[in-house]
Amino acid sequence: MLDVLSYLMDRPGSWVSGEEMASSLGISRAAVWKQIQILRSRGYSILSSTRKGYLLAQVPDILDRRSITRALETGYLGRELHYQSETSSTNDLARSVVGSARNGAVVLSEIQTSGRGRLGREWLSPRGGVWMSLILKPNLPPALAPRINMAVGVALARTLSELYGLQVGIKWPNDLLVGEKKVCGILTEISAEMDRLNYVVVGVGINANLDGGAFPGLWNATSLQQELGRRVSREELIVRFLKEAERSLEDMTSDLEKVRQEWCLRSSTLNRLVRIELAGEELVGTARSIDQEGALLIETEEGTMRRVLAGDCIHLRPVKRDDQGR
Amino acid sequence: MLDVLSYLMDRPGSWVSGEEMASSLGISRAAVWKQIQILRSRGYSILSSTRKGYLLAQVPDILDRRSITRALETGYLGRELHYQSETSSTNDLARSVVGSARNGAVVLSEIQTSGRGRLGREWLSPRGGVWMSLILKPNLPPALAPRINMAVGVALARTLSELYGLQVGIKWPNDLLVGEKKVCGILTEISAEMDRLNYVVVGVGINANLDGGAFPGLWNATSLQQELGRRVSREELIVRFLKEAERSLEDMTSDLEKVRQEWCLRSSTLNRLVRIELAGEELVGTARSIDQEGALLIETEEGTMRRVLAGDCIHLRPVKRDDQGR
Repeated sequence: MLDVLSYLMDRPGSWVSGEEMASSLGISRAAVWKQIQILRSRGYSILSSTRKGYLLAQVPDILDRRSITRALETGYLGRELHYQSETSSTNDLARSVVGSARNGAVVLSEIQTSGRGRLGREWLSPRGGVWMSLILKPNLPPALAPRINMAVGVALARTLSELYGLQVGIKWPNDLLVGEKKVCGILTEISAEMDRLNYVVVGVGINANLDGGAFPGLWNATSLQQELGRRVSREELIVRFLKEAERSLEDMTSDLEKVRQEWCLRSSTLNRLVRIELAGEELVGTARSIDQEGALLIETEEGTMRRVLAGDCIHLRPVKRDDQGR
Repeated sequence: MLDVLSYLMDRPGSWVSGEEMASSLGISRAAVWKQIQILRSRGYSILSSTRKGYLLAQVPDILDRRSITRALETGYLGRELHYQSETSSTNDLARSVVGSARNGAVVLSEIQTSGRGRLGREWLSPRGGVWMSLILKPNLPPALAPRINMAVGVALARTLSELYGLQVGIKWPNDLLVGEKKVCGILTEISAEMDRLNYVVVGVGINANLDGGAFPGLWNATSLQQELGRRVSREELIVRFLKEAERSLEDMTSDLEKVRQEWCLRSSTLNRLVRIELAGEELVGTARSIDQEGALLIETEEGTMRRVLAGDCIHLRPVKRDDQGR
């Protein structure tokens, strides 16, 4: 069945005769017909004509590992591709295969049953989203891992902006917003010795083809489908993102300042009044920049600069003091 | 058998009548005798007298989980104790139990078959050494993990100095030397999100009761047994080290400067000419201090200060330039 699918996918928009396909694949015409029926039952729309043969008109919204692999435009990122229809979290799955995985391996799942955001928070991950993790094995000290987070954030913002023309802003440290609503999240996890990363797993969650019902009670989440009013090709999205991520990761090594500047340009946090919530502390001020270690530089109301490595960032509307959530 | 052993260990240096033991443990006197025989076959020296009963004269040099637990003087460190007679590496074993382990859990093994030092280097771990890992779950950002490395190094140096009167020096970042020879190594590994540690595994290897034959071809290794001319009680060593480590880890949170200063005092790297080998670079200078992030501060020959987070550190003898290994 997969052979027939591959054959048709290799000839997009073209009619293919059943006889030609049968002979090329070394199977009977009846076997071709049977596989066509199975593909249709799985959501593939395949036209048939007694004279012209078959034409693949539409593929269903499920991810196909081989189809993605064929479409990839990267050197190494995603060339090793793990796919599951369901997993607890792609970061967990990535960690379970990391020992034998190559640098740049990617893990994909249709559904995450225990998707996580930062600090163990829940991340809803129903069918229709893009839930994936990149496995990276860079030769970097762990203190520089936030650069990877920065590079992937930039790549993701660029992808959504260029593919769909969306106004996407990076919210420090690792969400992507449309307006004030989350459309993507990044969860970067590391395993390291004191002076060397063993590996980095970058979890990327994109609310792609999710309708409003996917976020019950979540006023601050949205999806590409909601913003665009249509479904998107998740395969196209994945392929483009991996290309942009590979580019940004390369920039990170050769020209970090370029990545930092693009982050600043695409940020929705900079030049805003923000509240940072740390373990036992709260800091209010205007976000002025990030540095090459991914730390946010905040100008407090007293005019001093504070460097913030970690914490929750809340975008405040600089309207009324009473309106700042306090 | 363990019941008889515990019964005897609870009464150190005392004769215990077989009848009393049998009745307390609810077993027959013949069963007591049988267990005594088994213990003797495992290396326990147990005296017996028809009138006085039994006396535990000497325990063999194997670690006993229950005996260590009884001797512990800590609040939380080592209270959860995992013991294996053999494992690949205690850091690997620690990672395999970390999900359900409590903060402060400790993993011990008599032998490591694939003991590792920094950067994946081999660490010989035959019977007679102390091979252990501490599982810590501190609420710290990953950039501060080197403080844990520093605190454990200080605790280990203090233990060896106070228990055995040895002149032990800490070689940056994480070896303990007697003279110029390694007697202990520390391998700290972390798992983290960008702004929060998930856990830290601190591997501690102590060349305790190893004779010279344990290090074929290693001119720069020694053991406590070689330095002291006698075997040591590994149980006493473990119990004392865990107590000192708990103290240093507490100091790390409440008074980091105290830990840093003790590190400096016990260091054999400071005020020495050193060569730091980084990925593509080499740096020669005098080690002047370490900072609170565990970075080494090097004064170069040109008089500038360099901050080194990672790298191999080679102690140079400041004798002749030709003699500096170049």
